[in-house]
Amino acid sequence: MEKYDLDTTRKFNPLGMQNFVIHDSEFFKIINFNITAGRIFPVHSHDLDGQVSILVIEGEGAFLGDNETAIPAKVGDILVSDIREPHGVRADTDMRILVTIAPPI
Amino acid sequence: MEKYDLDTTRKFNPLGMQNFVIHDSEFFKIINFNITAGRIFPVHSHDLDGQVSILVIEGEGAFLGDNETAIPAKVGDILVSDIREPHGVRADTDMRILVTIAPPI
Repeated sequence: MEKYDLDTTRKFNPLGMQNFVIHDSEFFKIINFNITAGRIFPVHSHDLDGQVSILVIEGEGAFLGDNETAIPAKVGDILVSDIREPHGVRADTDMRILVTIAPPI
Repeated sequence: MEKYDLDTTRKFNPLGMQNFVIHDSEFFKIINFNITAGRIFPVHSHDLDGQVSILVIEGEGAFLGDNETAIPAKVGDILVSDIREPHGVRADTDMRILVTIAPPI
């Protein structure tokens, strides 16, 4: 077992987004993205089987989908999306998310 | 895509542990456990391939392993363990954890 401290990756880049791969194995990939207020993690998708969970651990904004979908997102909200379904995030404040992708891509 | 609000599962049972399955698919299972202060999520393991991540979203305590291993655990700490490796949690305060299991068991 291995412990990671997400306090150590609390870094923001005024120009956009910082990302830190917390864990990567054959079973899942866990990434911390820190998105500066006003920035967007662009809506994207991959033509692969699998799902992604996106947990807000700091700040607020919206989960984005296709057709201008924007679902309010605050600390404690978690989105689950198929990898092949368009998904993204908009940061209204400095915002931190923990993303888990299974299987890893 | 589907959003879940972990504020809605913030319930504690004075006698032990509450658990809420947030999501269950062929790719991963996500469960919120709320452990009352002083209680333990017993050390256990399964003889299966896969890994589990345990993120502390409220409170503090310790991640437990075999041989009396106890690793301090606070909000923002995340443990990754093989499913077949003994793992558990001790709650020193009321404590909430988000557990992701891939593949789901």
